[in-house]
Amino acid sequence: MSQLYTYKMPTELFFGRGAAMHTAEKVRELGSDNVVIVTDQGVYASGVLKTIEESLQAGNVTYSIYHDVEPEPTYKGVDEAVKLLKETKATAVIGVGGGSSMDTAKNVAVMGTNEGKIFDYLGFGNIKNKPLPIIAVPTTAGTGSEVTFWAVVGDKEKDIKASVGGWEIMPDTAILDPELTLSVPSHVTAATGMDAFCHAMESYVSKATQPVSEGLSYHAMRLIAGALRKAATRGDDIDAREDMLMGSLIAALAFNVGKLGLSHAFAMPLGAKYKIPHGMVNAIMLPWVMEYNLPAATEKYIEVAKLLGEHVEGLSPMEAAAKSVEAVKRLNADIGITQGLKDWGVKEEELLEIAQKAYQSGNIYSNPRSSRVEDLVEIAKKAMKGLR
Amino acid sequence: MSQLYTYKMPTELFFGRGAAMHTAEKVRELGSDNVVIVTDQGVYASGVLKTIEESLQAGNVTYSIYHDVEPEPTYKGVDEAVKLLKETKATAVIGVGGGSSMDTAKNVAVMGTNEGKIFDYLGFGNIKNKPLPIIAVPTTAGTGSEVTFWAVVGDKEKDIKASVGGWEIMPDTAILDPELTLSVPSHVTAATGMDAFCHAMESYVSKATQPVSEGLSYHAMRLIAGALRKAATRGDDIDAREDMLMGSLIAALAFNVGKLGLSHAFAMPLGAKYKIPHGMVNAIMLPWVMEYNLPAATEKYIEVAKLLGEHVEGLSPMEAAAKSVEAVKRLNADIGITQGLKDWGVKEEELLEIAQKAYQSGNIYSNPRSSRVEDLVEIAKKAMKGLR
Ligand SMILES: [Fe+2]
Ligand SMILES: [Fe+2]
Repeated sequence: MSQLYTYKMPTELFFGRGAAMHTAEKVRELGSDNVVIVTDQGVYASGVLKTIEESLQAGNVTYSIYHDVEPEPTYKGVDEAVKLLKETKATAVIGVGGGSSMDTAKNVAVMGTNEGKIFDYLGFGNIKNKPLPIIAVPTTAGTGSEVTFWAVVGDKEKDIKASVGGWEIMPDTAILDPELTLSVPSHVTAATGMDAFCHAMESYVSKATQPVSEGLSYHAMRLIAGALRKAATRGDDIDAREDMLMGSLIAALAFNVGKLGLSHAFAMPLGAKYKIPHGMVNAIMLPWVMEYNLPAATEKYIEVAKLLGEHVEGLSPMEAAAKSVEAVKRLNADIGITQGLKDWGVKEEELLEIAQKAYQSGNIYSNPRSSRVEDLVEIAKKAMKGLR
Repeated sequence: MSQLYTYKMPTELFFGRGAAMHTAEKVRELGSDNVVIVTDQGVYASGVLKTIEESLQAGNVTYSIYHDVEPEPTYKGVDEAVKLLKETKATAVIGVGGGSSMDTAKNVAVMGTNEGKIFDYLGFGNIKNKPLPIIAVPTTAGTGSEVTFWAVVGDKEKDIKASVGGWEIMPDTAILDPELTLSVPSHVTAATGMDAFCHAMESYVSKATQPVSEGLSYHAMRLIAGALRKAATRGDDIDAREDMLMGSLIAALAFNVGKLGLSHAFAMPLGAKYKIPHGMVNAIMLPWVMEYNLPAATEKYIEVAKLLGEHVEGLSPMEAAAKSVEAVKRLNADIGITQGLKDWGVKEEELLEIAQKAYQSGNIYSNPRSSRVEDLVEIAKKAMKGLR
């Protein structure tokens, strides 16, 4: 290492079964007694808010609920929730759900104390006034938004998907309660779980990895590899759910500073046009990206292979590293992810445009192997057919 | 897991070779342009401050230096440094050195904003006003005080060794520059390195471990196990020095919340009366404590054995776990730590009193195996003879 690195993690993590029953305490610790809960219709309908509402009621914390966050969050959700925030004079924001709800909550907190509109604050470090206190409560194990300094916000009409970023929007508190994730259906558990696994793996091999994040990436891979099959196939296994939630969190503690790679570069174009869920893109792309990366980070992929239970004794380094690719394909297949890009309507002749768009991503630079657009086309070609 | 856990790490970590050349920037980021450097005579004489002073001069940061911190820091060092702080109207404190210098710096920062004397603030959470900004710059790889919320302070006449604790004294910034550790002599590198290793191991098997800290403990063990032999036997190996400094840091990120075990329980009585350096106590005690703990955390010690390069295939769980004990003894011997307690003047008939004092430690409760005073006597007996 001849570079200088910074690691910072200002979010207080509060975790364990039943952690959400302490939501009111956590709100009061942040100096608030009046909050807006920001969530989506799925979470709202699922009954997951019950624990949180009971805690707030018991703790005499006033609250109102905005429950119309869209799967791809837009400025509209932010505006509407901010309106509710101002009407109710709330002084803190709780985001409950997946990445879209937590990201929207972050942006609502920004607009609670800043003038203008959320699009004025795009990019990293452009937030003027300290946002309102933010509590993030993930209900899926995947995005890790509860501890990242980015918040996605889009504009459907203008086909914009952008992000507000800054240390200020790291949530003040993340409440991680595996009981809130018990009802996530199998296919969502599988895809979001592979998103988390991809965060751990891509940050582990990333050029921007650093000692603190590297250890977290490694531990996250171990937790997720040990729990994802069970979480996706018998969702009531609270131990597996807990390991997934912690694995997703710990992966995010790593990739928030350690950056990601080519799978995530593909996530934006494939998500935007073909509506492939974010985690699904990563699950489909990861084995082929790994295969491409093997020569650039051979030792690390050998570690990944070992961690995934592969026997590598007596193999050459490249053979040993390649075992990691097989192991990830098997993991995908075991949790029901056998599709390729073709199954999502992607056509061979569109791959160049997809690769060009993917090449705009900052994750191109942190990926361990240097790449050209042509390389991305080749990787995507391999991902067309899936694992069947 | 059925418990609830909190993880918080408010310190900004800034690390890499040459990081200390950016000290002035870090001071200014904390809103100060006038600091007191708190250090000991050894560090002061070694020339290690040069980089820091040059940075402060180039950055127009006014500074004065208190360089009389004692190896076992007392209130006197705090009082004298606070006097300098008030005279110079400094607005931040930089602790440079081992645990004693960094701990004294923390206490100076407390007394910069609080009335009375430092002994008024003993215990956890009794600090009234927010301390002055604190920057910690370790020059040995061991204590991890740069990211812990405790600061030791003693009174020699009254034979008191106590601690001030609280989230407020987590340093605002830790600057980790392996170049500052290059001149640490071999025997100090060995002992402080084993202290760090013991932090990693004891927090890994601790009853208070939690998913975030567990991953950090594991990674710290890997870093230290891979680097300590080299750091202790060819001190100019900057890669080894860097891994040791990061391993020590990461172990502290873990044990600050994950707690420690019986080796550290012994550290207080054996350090106080027999003047055995803290790291040396841990190096001597650790193998015997591990042996005692094996039945209570067998799976974890198997992981430790594997991580230390032991072959455990075909062994029973207890046999596999026991390999970890052999590996740690070998590590000790390889870096020149072959002494037993006897070599430090401990007498068989004093072991009961030592065990009784050790039993006062909070680390008794986080140690994986429940113990009685008699058990501690037996462990200490085994540690009498050393490894020769
Ligand atoms: Fe992702
Ligand atoms: Fe220690």
